[in-house]
Amino acid sequence: MAHTTIRPGAEPVTLINVFTVEPGVQQQLVDLLDEATEQVMRHRPGFVSANIHASLDGTRVANYAQWRREGDFEAMLADPQAQVHMRAAAALATFEPALYRVASVHHTPER
Amino acid sequence: MAHTTIRPGAEPVTLINVFTVEPGVQQQLVDLLDEATEQVMRHRPGFVSANIHASLDGTRVANYAQWRREGDFEAMLADPQAQVHMRAAAALATFEPALYRVASVHHTPER
Repeated sequence: MAHTTIRPGAEPVTLINVFTVEPGVQQQLVDLLDEATEQVMRHRPGFVSANIHASLDGTRVANYAQWRREGDFEAMLADPQAQVHMRAAAALATFEPALYRVASVHHTPER
Repeated sequence: MAHTTIRPGAEPVTLINVFTVEPGVQQQLVDLLDEATEQVMRHRPGFVSANIHASLDGTRVANYAQWRREGDFEAMLADPQAQVHMRAAAALATFEPALYRVASVHHTPER
């Protein structure tokens, strides 16, 4: 069981990257993102966590990741090792990444 | 400080909804989603948590929410009170919701 701490604020920054895949390719992309995260991303300075999600309808994969600050994420984008994995993902899917700050956190009422 | 527990698996289900907004409308949409979540969504059966995110570039808002199971989320979609808020959001933004299972969780190596 893993714990993630989420607080409203600008840092850490949150990457949300939604990939759209052809039917049958979803698991292949999950495996590729798992491998890229384990081998490269998580060893980069400023990496905090990444959760890879597979849509129930089979057409999407989403990466929800936290980085210490925007500059750490941008330095990763310039890393040739990371670029190898990003090109492999681009061959399997279209994707739309964006960096976010957490604006608010809501929980179920105490019962 | 809020804690969210994330485990690989099919339940709870994760909603990731990325909204695209015109410049200047981002905070208005964040406020609307906050209000909808506090007034309606979090009181619905099966709601677990929602984190609202604002993109650093001002063009997107993302809702990352957990529901106990898919049927709870679908019952919410049919709730007339929830529909009022969804129509208000649709007047401010385009959006692409999808339900996901967590496929994998990655953390920074222990140092």
